[in-house]
Amino acid sequence: MTSVLLDTPPVFDAVLQDGLRDLLTWRRDVRGFQATPLAEGTIERLIATACLAPSVGLSEPWRFVVVEDPAARAAVRANYETCNAAALASQDGSRRALYASLKLSGLDQAPVHVAAFAERDCSQGHGLGRQTMPSALDYSVAIAIHTLWLAARLEGIGLGWVSIVDPAAITEILDIPKSWHFIGYLCLGYPSEEHDVPALQRAGWDERRAPASRILYR
Amino acid sequence: MTSVLLDTPPVFDAVLQDGLRDLLTWRRDVRGFQATPLAEGTIERLIATACLAPSVGLSEPWRFVVVEDPAARAAVRANYETCNAAALASQDGSRRALYASLKLSGLDQAPVHVAAFAERDCSQGHGLGRQTMPSALDYSVAIAIHTLWLAARLEGIGLGWVSIVDPAAITEILDIPKSWHFIGYLCLGYPSEEHDVPALQRAGWDERRAPASRILYR
Repeated sequence: MTSVLLDTPPVFDAVLQDGLRDLLTWRRDVRGFQATPLAEGTIERLIATACLAPSVGLSEPWRFVVVEDPAARAAVRANYETCNAAALASQDGSRRALYASLKLSGLDQAPVHVAAFAERDCSQGHGLGRQTMPSALDYSVAIAIHTLWLAARLEGIGLGWVSIVDPAAITEILDIPKSWHFIGYLCLGYPSEEHDVPALQRAGWDERRAPASRILYR
Repeated sequence: MTSVLLDTPPVFDAVLQDGLRDLLTWRRDVRGFQATPLAEGTIERLIATACLAPSVGLSEPWRFVVVEDPAARAAVRANYETCNAAALASQDGSRRALYASLKLSGLDQAPVHVAAFAERDCSQGHGLGRQTMPSALDYSVAIAIHTLWLAARLEGIGLGWVSIVDPAAITEILDIPKSWHFIGYLCLGYPSEEHDVPALQRAGWDERRAPASRILYR
Protein backbone atom coordinates (compact mmCIF):
# COMPACT_ATOMS: atom_id res chain seq x y z
CA MET A 1 0.00 0.00 0.00
CA THR A 2 1.56 3.28 -1.09
CA SER A 3 0.17 6.74 -1.49
CA VAL A 4 1.75 7.30 -4.89
CA LEU A 5 -1.41 6.99 -6.93
CA LEU A 6 -3.62 8.76 -4.42
CA ASP A 7 -1.53 11.61 -3.16
CA THR A 8 -3.91 14.37 -4.20
CA PRO A 9 -6.01 14.98 -1.13
CA PRO A 10 -9.73 15.48 -1.68
CA VAL A 11 -11.24 18.91 -1.24
CA PHE A 12 -13.98 18.77 1.37
CA ASP A 13 -16.75 21.19 0.48
CA ALA A 14 -19.63 22.77 2.38
CA VAL A 15 -21.97 19.97 1.31
CA LEU A 16 -19.78 17.43 3.09
CA GLN A 17 -19.30 19.71 6.10
CA ASP A 18 -23.06 20.12 6.47
CA GLY A 19 -23.49 16.40 5.88
CA LEU A 20 -21.12 15.47 8.70
CA ARG A 21 -22.94 17.86 11.00
CA ASP A 22 -26.26 16.20 10.12
CA LEU A 23 -24.68 12.81 10.68
CA LEU A 24 -23.39 13.78 14.12
CA THR A 25 -26.69 15.43 14.99
CA TRP A 26 -28.81 12.38 14.05
CA ARG A 27 -26.39 9.64 15.17
CA ARG A 28 -28.09 8.51 18.42
CA ASP A 29 -27.43 5.68 20.80
CA VAL A 30 -30.15 3.34 19.54
CA ARG A 31 -32.11 1.07 21.87
CA GLY A 32 -35.10 0.24 19.69
CA PHE A 33 -34.58 -1.80 16.51
CA GLN A 34 -36.67 -3.19 13.69
CA ALA A 35 -36.54 -6.95 13.18
CA THR A 36 -35.16 -6.53 9.62
CA PRO A 37 -31.78 -8.28 9.42
CA LEU A 38 -28.71 -6.59 7.97
CA ALA A 39 -27.74 -7.85 4.52
CA GLU A 40 -25.05 -10.54 4.39
CA GLY A 41 -21.58 -9.01 4.68
CA THR A 42 -22.78 -5.68 6.06
CA ILE A 43 -21.13 -5.95 9.47
CA GLU A 44 -17.83 -7.05 7.92
CA ARG A 45 -17.92 -4.06 5.56
CA LEU A 46 -18.69 -1.66 8.41
CA ILE A 47 -15.89 -3.14 10.52
CA ALA A 48 -13.51 -2.67 7.58
CA THR A 49 -14.40 1.03 7.58
CA ALA A 50 -13.93 1.13 11.36
CA CYS A 51 -10.38 -0.10 10.80
CA LEU A 52 -9.58 3.26 9.18
CA ALA A 53 -9.68 4.72 12.70
CA PRO A 54 -6.50 6.11 14.22
CA SER A 55 -4.66 3.85 16.65
CA VAL A 56 -1.81 4.56 19.02
CA GLY A 57 1.49 3.69 17.35
CA LEU A 58 -0.40 2.01 14.47
CA SER A 59 -1.21 -0.80 16.90
CA GLU A 60 -4.76 -1.42 15.60
CA PRO A 61 -5.65 -3.11 18.92
CA TRP A 62 -9.34 -3.49 18.05
CA ARG A 63 -10.86 -6.97 18.07
CA PHE A 64 -14.49 -7.31 17.03
CA VAL A 65 -16.43 -10.36 18.13
CA VAL A 66 -19.63 -10.92 16.17
CA VAL A 67 -21.95 -12.73 18.58
CA GLU A 68 -24.33 -15.05 16.75
CA ASP A 69 -24.86 -17.97 19.12
CA PRO A 70 -28.30 -17.65 20.74
CA ALA A 71 -27.03 -19.08 24.03
CA ALA A 72 -24.21 -16.53 24.18
CA ARG A 73 -26.63 -13.73 23.38
CA ALA A 74 -29.00 -14.92 26.09
CA ALA A 75 -26.15 -15.05 28.61
CA VAL A 76 -25.09 -11.49 27.72
CA ARG A 77 -28.66 -10.32 28.08
CA ALA A 78 -29.01 -12.03 31.45
CA ASN A 79 -25.83 -10.31 32.60
CA TYR A 80 -27.23 -6.97 31.44
CA GLU A 81 -30.45 -7.60 33.37
CA THR A 82 -28.50 -8.39 36.54
CA CYS A 83 -26.26 -5.31 36.21
CA ASN A 84 -29.19 -3.09 35.36
CA ALA A 85 -31.15 -4.25 38.40
CA ALA A 86 -28.14 -3.34 40.57
CA ALA A 87 -27.84 0.04 38.86
CA LEU A 88 -31.55 0.68 39.43
CA ALA A 89 -31.17 -0.14 43.13
CA SER A 90 -28.25 2.30 43.41
CA GLN A 91 -30.27 5.23 42.06
CA ASP A 92 -31.70 7.76 44.49
CA GLY A 93 -35.29 7.11 45.41
CA SER A 94 -36.49 10.16 43.54
CA ARG A 95 -34.92 8.93 40.29
CA ARG A 96 -35.64 5.25 40.59
CA ALA A 97 -39.01 5.27 38.85
CA LEU A 98 -37.67 7.30 35.96
CA TYR A 99 -34.63 4.99 35.67
CA ALA A 100 -36.90 1.95 35.64
CA SER A 101 -38.91 3.44 32.77
CA LEU A 102 -35.86 3.85 30.51
CA LYS A 103 -35.09 1.32 27.77
CA LEU A 104 -31.31 1.08 28.10
CA SER A 105 -30.44 -1.60 25.58
CA GLY A 106 -31.66 -3.13 22.36
CA LEU A 107 -30.29 -6.58 23.23
CA ASP A 108 -33.80 -8.02 22.90
CA GLN A 109 -34.29 -6.71 19.34
CA ALA A 110 -31.04 -5.99 17.52
CA PRO A 111 -30.30 -8.41 14.68
CA VAL A 112 -26.52 -7.95 15.04
CA HIS A 113 -24.48 -8.09 18.26
CA VAL A 114 -20.78 -7.19 18.36
CA ALA A 115 -18.49 -7.17 21.40
CA ALA A 116 -15.44 -4.93 21.05
CA PHE A 117 -12.15 -5.56 22.84
CA ALA A 118 -8.69 -4.01 23.03
CA GLU A 119 -5.73 -6.41 22.71
CA ARG A 120 -3.62 -5.14 25.60
CA ASP A 121 -0.79 -7.55 24.81
CA CYS A 122 -0.40 -6.13 21.35
CA SER A 123 2.91 -6.51 19.54
CA GLN A 124 1.76 -4.50 16.54
CA GLY A 125 3.06 -0.94 16.82
CA HIS A 126 6.01 -2.06 18.94
CA GLY A 127 4.78 -0.21 22.01
CA LEU A 128 5.05 3.21 20.38
CA GLY A 129 3.03 5.92 22.11
CA ARG A 130 1.80 3.79 25.00
CA GLN A 131 4.61 3.62 27.54
CA THR A 132 3.20 6.39 29.74
CA MET A 133 -0.39 5.90 28.61
CA PRO A 134 -1.26 2.22 28.09
CA SER A 135 -4.94 3.21 28.06
CA ALA A 136 -4.31 4.72 24.63
CA LEU A 137 -4.97 1.20 23.33
CA ASP A 138 -8.46 1.30 24.84
CA TYR A 139 -9.08 4.79 23.45
CA SER A 140 -8.13 3.54 19.98
CA VAL A 141 -10.83 0.90 20.22
CA ALA A 142 -13.42 3.41 21.47
CA ILE A 143 -12.64 5.52 18.40
CA ALA A 144 -12.93 2.53 16.07
CA ILE A 145 -16.37 1.87 17.57
CA HIS A 146 -17.28 5.50 16.90
CA THR A 147 -16.10 5.13 13.30
CA LEU A 148 -18.26 2.02 12.92
CA TRP A 149 -21.16 3.96 14.42
CA LEU A 150 -20.87 6.82 11.91
CA ALA A 151 -20.40 4.49 8.93
CA ALA A 152 -23.47 2.48 10.00
CA ARG A 153 -25.63 5.56 10.51
CA LEU A 154 -24.74 6.80 7.02
CA GLU A 155 -26.41 3.63 5.70
CA GLY A 156 -29.44 4.09 7.93
CA ILE A 157 -28.22 1.49 10.43
CA GLY A 158 -28.37 2.35 14.10
CA LEU A 159 -25.90 1.36 16.82
CA GLY A 160 -26.44 1.18 20.55
CA TRP A 161 -23.51 0.87 22.96
CA VAL A 162 -24.34 -1.20 26.02
CA SER A 163 -22.06 -0.52 29.02
CA ILE A 164 -24.37 -1.93 31.70
CA VAL A 165 -22.65 -5.32 31.72
CA ASP A 166 -19.83 -6.88 33.72
CA PRO A 167 -16.65 -6.94 31.57
CA ALA A 168 -15.36 -10.13 33.25
CA ALA A 169 -18.64 -11.93 32.59
CA ILE A 170 -18.73 -10.92 28.92
CA THR A 171 -15.13 -12.06 28.48
CA GLU A 172 -16.02 -15.42 30.00
CA ILE A 173 -19.29 -15.89 28.12
CA LEU A 174 -17.51 -15.29 24.81
CA ASP A 175 -14.41 -17.32 25.72
CA ILE A 176 -12.05 -14.45 24.95
CA PRO A 177 -8.26 -14.44 25.56
CA LYS A 178 -7.33 -12.90 28.90
CA SER A 179 -5.25 -10.16 27.26
CA TRP A 180 -8.28 -8.75 25.48
CA HIS A 181 -9.83 -5.92 27.49
CA PHE A 182 -13.58 -5.46 27.04
CA ILE A 183 -14.54 -2.01 25.74
CA GLY A 184 -18.20 -2.21 24.72
CA TYR A 185 -21.09 -4.39 23.60
CA LEU A 186 -22.77 -3.09 20.47
CA CYS A 187 -26.26 -3.67 19.12
CA LEU A 188 -26.82 -2.92 15.44
CA GLY A 189 -29.87 -2.88 13.20
CA TYR A 190 -32.36 -0.55 11.59
CA PRO A 191 -33.67 1.81 14.26
CA SER A 192 -37.35 1.83 15.07
CA GLU A 193 -37.31 5.61 15.48
CA GLU A 194 -35.04 8.46 14.45
CA HIS A 195 -34.35 11.53 16.54
CA ASP A 196 -31.99 14.48 16.65
CA VAL A 197 -32.16 14.72 20.45
CA PRO A 198 -30.63 12.07 22.76
CA ALA A 199 -33.15 9.60 24.19
CA LEU A 200 -32.09 10.44 27.77
CA GLN A 201 -32.81 14.11 27.12
CA ARG A 202 -36.20 13.30 25.58
CA ALA A 203 -37.00 11.23 28.68
CA GLY A 204 -36.02 14.06 31.03
CA TRP A 205 -33.06 12.17 32.53
CA ASP A 206 -30.54 14.94 31.87
CA GLU A 207 -29.72 17.39 29.12
CA ARG A 208 -26.85 18.60 27.05
CA ARG A 209 -24.88 21.56 28.31
CA ALA A 210 -23.49 24.50 26.34
CA PRO A 211 -20.13 23.59 24.73
CA ALA A 212 -18.57 26.79 26.08
CA SER A 213 -18.99 25.36 29.60
CA ARG A 214 -16.56 22.57 28.63
CA ILE A 215 -13.68 24.89 27.66
CA LEU A 216 -10.96 26.20 29.92
CA TYR A 217 -7.99 28.39 29.00
CA ARG A 218 -4.51 28.11 30.45
CA MET B 1 -34.27 21.96 22.77
CA THR B 2 -36.87 19.67 21.26
CA SER B 3 -36.97 17.60 18.11
CA VAL B 4 -40.41 18.83 17.06
CA LEU B 5 -39.28 21.07 14.23
CA LEU B 6 -36.48 18.80 13.08
CA ASP B 7 -37.89 15.32 13.28
CA THR B 8 -37.43 14.44 9.64
CA PRO B 9 -34.09 12.68 9.51
CA PRO B 10 -31.79 13.57 6.62
CA VAL B 11 -31.24 11.08 3.84
CA PHE B 12 -27.55 10.30 3.55
CA ASP B 13 -26.63 9.67 -0.07
CA ALA B 14 -23.70 8.03 -1.83
CA VAL B 15 -21.91 11.39 -2.12
CA LEU B 16 -21.81 11.71 1.65
CA GLN B 17 -20.88 8.04 2.11
CA ASP B 18 -17.95 8.44 -0.28
CA GLY B 19 -17.06 11.73 1.38
CA LEU B 20 -16.87 10.16 4.84
CA ARG B 21 -14.68 7.41 3.45
CA ASP B 22 -12.34 10.02 1.94
CA LEU B 23 -12.33 11.87 5.25
CA LEU B 24 -11.41 8.74 7.21
CA THR B 25 -8.82 7.78 4.61
CA TRP B 26 -7.07 11.18 4.65
CA ARG B 27 -7.52 12.02 8.36
CA ARG B 28 -3.96 11.33 9.63
CA ASP B 29 -2.27 11.89 12.96
CA VAL B 30 -0.45 15.08 12.05
CA ARG B 31 3.03 15.89 13.39
CA GLY B 32 4.10 18.59 10.93
CA PHE B 33 2.27 21.91 10.88
CA GLN B 34 2.42 25.18 8.98
CA ALA B 35 2.92 28.32 11.07
CA THR B 36 -0.39 29.79 9.86
CA PRO B 37 -2.61 30.41 12.89
CA LEU B 38 -6.21 29.25 13.04
CA ALA B 39 -8.76 32.03 12.65
CA GLU B 40 -10.19 33.48 15.85
CA GLY B 41 -12.99 31.30 17.23
CA THR B 42 -12.05 28.24 15.19
CA ILE B 43 -11.10 25.98 18.10
CA GLU B 44 -14.24 26.94 20.01
CA ARG B 45 -16.38 26.12 16.96
CA LEU B 46 -14.64 22.76 16.50
CA ILE B 47 -15.06 21.92 20.18
CA ALA B 48 -18.78 22.75 19.89
CA THR B 49 -19.03 20.16 17.10
CA ALA B 50 -17.07 17.69 19.25
CA CYS B 51 -19.75 18.09 21.91
CA LEU B 52 -22.19 16.31 19.55
CA ALA B 53 -20.30 13.12 20.41
CA PRO B 54 -22.08 10.37 22.30
CA SER B 55 -21.39 10.15 26.04
CA VAL B 56 -22.24 7.49 28.56
CA GLY B 57 -25.52 8.34 30.28
CA LEU B 58 -25.46 11.80 28.66
CA SER B 59 -22.68 12.70 31.09
CA GLU B 60 -20.67 14.81 28.61
CA PRO B 61 -17.54 14.31 30.75
CA TRP B 62 -15.22 16.04 28.26
CA ARG B 63 -13.23 19.05 29.41
CA PHE B 64 -11.08 20.83 26.85
CA VAL B 65 -8.19 22.97 28.04
CA VAL B 66 -6.87 25.37 25.41
CA VAL B 67 -3.21 25.86 26.29
CA GLU B 68 -2.00 29.32 25.28
CA ASP B 69 0.59 30.24 27.92
CA PRO B 70 4.10 29.87 26.42
CA ALA B 71 5.52 28.66 29.74
CA ALA B 72 2.88 25.95 30.03
CA ARG B 73 3.51 24.89 26.43
CA ALA B 74 7.23 24.74 27.06
CA ALA B 75 6.70 22.62 30.18
CA VAL B 76 4.49 20.20 28.25
CA ARG B 77 7.07 19.96 25.52
CA ALA B 78 9.84 19.33 28.04
CA ASN B 79 7.76 16.53 29.55
CA TYR B 80 7.26 15.04 26.09
CA GLU B 81 11.02 15.16 25.46
CA THR B 82 11.70 13.35 28.74
CA CYS B 83 9.07 10.68 28.12
CA ASN B 84 10.17 10.22 24.52
CA ALA B 85 13.80 9.74 25.56
CA ALA B 86 12.67 7.01 27.98
CA ALA B 87 10.56 5.40 25.26
CA LEU B 88 13.52 5.47 22.88
CA ALA B 89 15.69 3.77 25.47
CA SER B 90 13.09 1.03 25.95
CA GLN B 91 13.04 0.13 22.27
CA ASP B 92 14.96 -2.93 21.08
CA GLY B 93 18.39 -2.11 19.73
CA SER B 94 17.39 -3.00 16.20
CA ARG B 95 14.51 -0.50 16.26
CA ARG B 96 16.18 2.31 18.19
CA ALA B 97 17.61 4.18 15.21
CA LEU B 98 14.31 4.05 13.35
CA TYR B 99 12.45 5.22 16.47
CA ALA B 100 14.87 8.11 16.89
CA SER B 101 14.23 9.21 13.30
CA LEU B 102 10.47 9.51 13.79
CA LYS B 103 8.82 12.87 14.42
CA LEU B 104 6.26 11.95 17.04
CA SER B 105 4.70 15.29 17.92
CA GLY B 106 4.02 18.68 16.45
CA LEU B 107 4.38 20.45 19.80
CA ASP B 108 7.15 22.59 18.32
CA GLN B 109 5.00 23.87 15.45
CA ALA B 110 1.28 23.61 16.08
CA PRO B 111 -0.44 26.98 16.56
CA VAL B 112 -3.15 25.48 18.81
CA HIS B 113 -2.65 23.15 21.78
CA VAL B 114 -5.57 21.49 23.58
CA ALA B 115 -5.41 19.10 26.51
CA ALA B 116 -8.47 16.84 26.87
CA PHE B 117 -9.66 15.44 30.19
CA ALA B 118 -12.51 13.29 31.50
CA GLU B 119 -14.33 14.57 34.59
CA ARG B 120 -14.45 11.34 36.60
CA ASP B 121 -16.45 12.97 39.39
CA CYS B 122 -19.23 13.87 37.03
CA SER B 123 -22.73 14.43 38.40
CA GLN B 124 -24.21 14.98 34.96
CA GLY B 125 -25.87 11.78 33.74
CA HIS B 126 -26.51 10.64 37.34
CA GLY B 127 -24.15 7.69 37.02
CA LEU B 128 -26.20 6.01 34.31
CA GLY B 129 -24.28 3.38 32.32
CA ARG B 130 -21.06 3.58 34.28
CA GLN B 131 -21.54 1.49 37.42
CA THR B 132 -19.82 -1.58 36.00
CA MET B 133 -17.71 0.35 33.50
CA PRO B 134 -16.48 3.67 34.92
CA SER B 135 -14.00 3.85 32.03
CA ALA B 136 -16.93 4.60 29.76
CA LEU B 137 -16.38 8.23 30.82
CA ASP B 138 -12.87 8.10 29.36
CA TYR B 139 -14.11 6.45 26.18
CA SER B 140 -16.67 9.25 25.76
CA VAL B 141 -13.85 11.78 25.79
CA ALA B 142 -11.77 9.76 23.31
CA ILE B 143 -14.77 9.79 20.98
CA ALA B 144 -15.25 13.54 21.42
CA ILE B 145 -11.59 13.99 20.45
CA HIS B 146 -12.20 11.87 17.36
CA THR B 147 -15.22 14.02 16.50
CA LEU B 148 -13.08 17.15 16.84
CA TRP B 149 -10.47 15.49 14.63
CA LEU B 150 -12.94 14.75 11.82
CA ALA B 151 -14.55 18.20 12.00
CA ALA B 152 -11.11 19.83 11.85
CA ARG B 153 -9.93 17.71 8.92
CA LEU B 154 -13.06 18.66 6.96
CA GLU B 155 -11.86 22.26 7.17
CA GLY B 156 -8.33 21.33 6.15
CA ILE B 157 -7.06 21.51 9.73
CA GLY B 158 -4.89 18.68 10.99
CA LEU B 159 -4.82 17.19 14.48
CA GLY B 160 -2.06 15.21 16.15
CA TRP B 161 -2.70 13.26 19.36
CA VAL B 162 0.33 13.20 21.66
CA SER B 163 0.30 10.32 24.17
CA ILE B 164 4.03 10.36 24.95
CA VAL B 165 3.60 12.48 28.07
CA ASP B 166 3.11 11.78 31.76
CA PRO B 167 -0.57 12.33 32.68
CA ALA B 168 0.28 13.43 36.23
CA ALA B 169 2.78 16.00 34.95
CA ILE B 170 0.33 17.47 32.43
CA THR B 171 -2.35 17.71 35.12
CA GLU B 172 0.07 19.58 37.37
CA ILE B 173 1.48 21.87 34.67
CA LEU B 174 -2.04 22.96 33.72
CA ASP B 175 -3.29 23.18 37.32
CA ILE B 176 -6.24 20.90 36.66
CA PRO B 177 -8.70 19.60 39.29
CA LYS B 178 -7.73 16.19 40.67
CA SER B 179 -10.96 14.58 39.47
CA TRP B 180 -10.13 15.32 35.83
CA HIS B 181 -8.43 12.35 34.19
CA PHE B 182 -6.01 13.19 31.38
CA ILE B 183 -6.95 11.58 28.05
CA GLY B 184 -4.81 13.24 25.40
CA TYR B 185 -2.80 16.28 24.35
CA LEU B 186 -3.80 17.60 20.95
CA CYS B 187 -1.89 19.72 18.45
CA LEU B 188 -3.93 21.51 15.79
CA GLY B 189 -3.04 23.56 12.75
CA TYR B 190 -2.74 23.38 8.99
CA PRO B 191 -0.70 20.29 8.10
CA SER B 192 2.57 20.71 6.24
CA GLU B 193 1.83 17.56 4.19
CA GLU B 194 -1.21 15.46 3.35
CA HIS B 195 -1.20 11.71 2.99
CA ASP B 196 -3.61 8.81 2.73
CA VAL B 197 -1.19 6.39 4.42
CA PRO B 198 -0.26 6.63 8.13
CA ALA B 199 3.11 8.26 8.79
CA LEU B 200 4.32 5.22 10.74
CA GLN B 201 3.55 2.98 7.78
CA ARG B 202 5.34 5.35 5.38
CA ALA B 203 8.36 5.28 7.71
CA GLY B 204 8.37 1.47 7.80
CA TRP B 205 7.56 1.27 11.52
CA ASP B 206 4.58 -1.05 11.08
CA GLU B 207 1.68 -1.47 8.72
CA ARG B 208 -2.05 -1.85 8.71
CA ARG B 209 -3.46 -5.35 8.79
CA ALA B 210 -6.46 -6.73 6.89
CA PRO B 211 -9.71 -5.89 8.69
CA ALA B 212 -10.84 -9.53 8.42
CA SER B 213 -8.01 -10.45 10.81
CA ARG B 214 -9.72 -8.35 13.50
CA ILE B 215 -13.05 -10.23 13.39
CA LEU B 216 -13.99 -13.27 15.43
CA TYR B 217 -17.32 -15.10 15.48
CA ARG B 218 -18.98 -16.63 18.52
